[in-house]
Amino acid sequence: MSLGALPGFRDFYPADLAERAHIFATWRDVARRYGFVEYDGPPLEPLDLYTRKSGDEIVGQLYNFTDKGGRDVALRPEMTPTLARMVAARANAQRKPVRWFSIPQLFRYERQQRGRLREHFQLNLDIIGESGVTADAELLAAAVDIMRAFGLGPADVVARVSDRRLLQAYLAAAGVPEPALPAVFAVIDKIDRQPATVSAEKLDALGVGPGARDAVLAIGSATWAAISAVLAGAGHAGLVADFERYLRALDALGAGAFVRVDLSVVRGLAYYTGIVFELFDAKGELRAICGGGRYDTLLKSLGGVDLPALGFGMGDVVLGELLRSRGLTTWQSSGIDVWVAIGDAGDVTDAMRVAARLRARGRSVEYSLGGQKLARQLKAANAAGAREAVILGAPGAASGEAVVRRLDDGTEQRVRLDAWIGDATPPASNHQPPATT
Amino acid sequence: MSLGALPGFRDFYPADLAERAHIFATWRDVARRYGFVEYDGPPLEPLDLYTRKSGDEIVGQLYNFTDKGGRDVALRPEMTPTLARMVAARANAQRKPVRWFSIPQLFRYERQQRGRLREHFQLNLDIIGESGVTADAELLAAAVDIMRAFGLGPADVVARVSDRRLLQAYLAAAGVPEPALPAVFAVIDKIDRQPATVSAEKLDALGVGPGARDAVLAIGSATWAAISAVLAGAGHAGLVADFERYLRALDALGAGAFVRVDLSVVRGLAYYTGIVFELFDAKGELRAICGGGRYDTLLKSLGGVDLPALGFGMGDVVLGELLRSRGLTTWQSSGIDVWVAIGDAGDVTDAMRVAARLRARGRSVEYSLGGQKLARQLKAANAAGAREAVILGAPGAASGEAVVRRLDDGTEQRVRLDAWIGDATPPASNHQPPATT
Repeated sequence: MSLGALPGFRDFYPADLAERAHIFATWRDVARRYGFVEYDGPPLEPLDLYTRKSGDEIVGQLYNFTDKGGRDVALRPEMTPTLARMVAARANAQRKPVRWFSIPQLFRYERQQRGRLREHFQLNLDIIGESGVTADAELLAAAVDIMRAFGLGPADVVARVSDRRLLQAYLAAAGVPEPALPAVFAVIDKIDRQPATVSAEKLDALGVGPGARDAVLAIGSATWAAISAVLAGAGHAGLVADFERYLRALDALGAGAFVRVDLSVVRGLAYYTGIVFELFDAKGELRAICGGGRYDTLLKSLGGVDLPALGFGMGDVVLGELLRSRGLTTWQSSGIDVWVAIGDAGDVTDAMRVAARLRARGRSVEYSLGGQKLARQLKAANAAGAREAVILGAPGAASGEAVVRRLDDGTEQRVRLDAWIGDATPPASNHQPPATT
Repeated sequence: MSLGALPGFRDFYPADLAERAHIFATWRDVARRYGFVEYDGPPLEPLDLYTRKSGDEIVGQLYNFTDKGGRDVALRPEMTPTLARMVAARANAQRKPVRWFSIPQLFRYERQQRGRLREHFQLNLDIIGESGVTADAELLAAAVDIMRAFGLGPADVVARVSDRRLLQAYLAAAGVPEPALPAVFAVIDKIDRQPATVSAEKLDALGVGPGARDAVLAIGSATWAAISAVLAGAGHAGLVADFERYLRALDALGAGAFVRVDLSVVRGLAYYTGIVFELFDAKGELRAICGGGRYDTLLKSLGGVDLPALGFGMGDVVLGELLRSRGLTTWQSSGIDVWVAIGDAGDVTDAMRVAARLRARGRSVEYSLGGQKLARQLKAANAAGAREAVILGAPGAASGEAVVRRLDDGTEQRVRLDAWIGDATPPASNHQPPATT
């Protein structure tokens, strides 16, 4: 038997799953606070759901095949087409704006690079049916509050915000010829990843004059004050006012300290129509944590409904790397609550009865399934991470008495068993809050 | 755009997802109380992981294909092979017994019957490394406590328990010829689903004499007292004593009221080696809710480690049907906590500031993203299921004052806004408990 998973796929042993569960729980909690409700779709979808949006080139990156019924199908590489399909199918039944989130596992057959995964989980959070910048601010504020919920502050994470329309107007005002704009966007998209001389040569080749070229090369460090002055002077006061309402809304929602205007954020995906953003670790060591923005024309172009929309995706992999690098590993398994042990005078059915009563009170409980000496039982209790052991039938114990041993320091006390079980307060919540509240 | 999912696949709209989340949360909570920790594996695995266990015939029921690297792969139809692979890869690093659970989505390409799904979620809960009946009792007690946690009692659910070794000894004692045993098992497996005359004819054809035939036909209603008397008389006192320890352990664990010995439970899967069980709705209207048992030789035969093991699978589909039929629909979405509305004198940035403060206290909060009149905002609040609305800038409100309106009965009170926000107690737990505790 091959003992490994397929290349690019992860096994989640309990310690790995605990990290994943912590990430999912935090995502769900912030989404709930913002009034988003959870949905999900199938991990397998018709292939044309993806080729319609991205063209046939995407097929080379998909896990696609023909099923036994002759259907061309693919493991989902992204969630937006499924979201578009589901919203379109019940567009009239949903209250607007739709505020939905999902945590799909996504799959891409990428030519294997070292350590590059072929699956990951991604929080998708979308607002559908609202065109104003208030919704854009609400979306980014949710992403920022997720960072906060993980213990990450403005010193750890930067939210770079941009708007394709602002960028276009700014470049035009700086003298970039209109026909060169798409190619210039592509240069800007790579500006952080290639030497400035390379970018400059490309701009020269596109016919961008020296003044405009310098403006393009400096675009990542242009302040909003400078940008807005150029735009206002070029007759774009409306665009400026709209974006300033967006920035004020981010302040009001408590996200302002994380935000930096950076028109060099173009986003690779071609379908964004307005404000876009990306979250990065402040040290710039990792790939983007999260990216999203407004895609007002996408739902219609997919053949669905004509509704404005915006959303972001946040994967579990880069986020996990960042949390580990910052020591924010609060997900570590905390072990069980109580180990029920039996001394020489005890019987395993007594342990079972006590375990059943404690479990009914919400406690996490184990006991030795095989008959073992007390010392070995206590060793197993330690290995299980139990906080305390209750020892039944300990030497010299009176009827109805037990010994409770704290496993961190070994201190013991005699207790009346019934009273002690009765005191076993259930945890604050046995259940996770429902995913939709 | 086709608006539907593939045949046999489910879209989970928020109301559907809320049911699923309730089922998953209950599974996780009971597993935690029993000291089980969560793991997961990839939904896509090498094809031979499944053909090694089930032979090439299983390929006809799989979603299998050749990936772009030329690997034969399949969407997982069951979890046990992945569990076997993962445990074998790190057998020495795990404390024994291994108590693990997982909630995989599983896939089978079944010839489509009306309403038959091609995917479902299944709780898999397994104990590895313990051979005694105490572990068997612990396993079934966990399944029974899951029923209880859903609000299902012994009047709703029956746990039918059996043991292949007992059945074999009982049939031999009743006079079934040894060579006919496998074929007789197959008859018993179908005994509830075909007329008694058909079963009787099949037994006749197998050379089972009239006395033995009647014993086989009545096997489902034979009491443990009658069975154990026959077995003890035939020299199987050891088997009887072991099974009685199992039954006593189930009593001690509080599961006894659900349990009925029923040797007609054979379980279709050939790999069980000892005690097996199935949970059924007491009315007998649905397919099995859960099935499992001991499979001591499977891990080794899969090429993994030689460890005794036992486990069960519990799907989300039949369970969901049962919960709905009993009206146990506690998962229904409960709506948001607070809608922040603004009167004529209010400003949307004020609403944002209040929303941010309430969300920071764990409350679930929305406000109108588009500028709307107060009456429409309150209508939206109702549609969102908000429990209360706080109205800022209401007519005649003094500075720092707001009106809080209960949306169930429309009663209103004036409050000091800061004090009211300060009183917004966070919910008992913002986070679901970690999946592994």
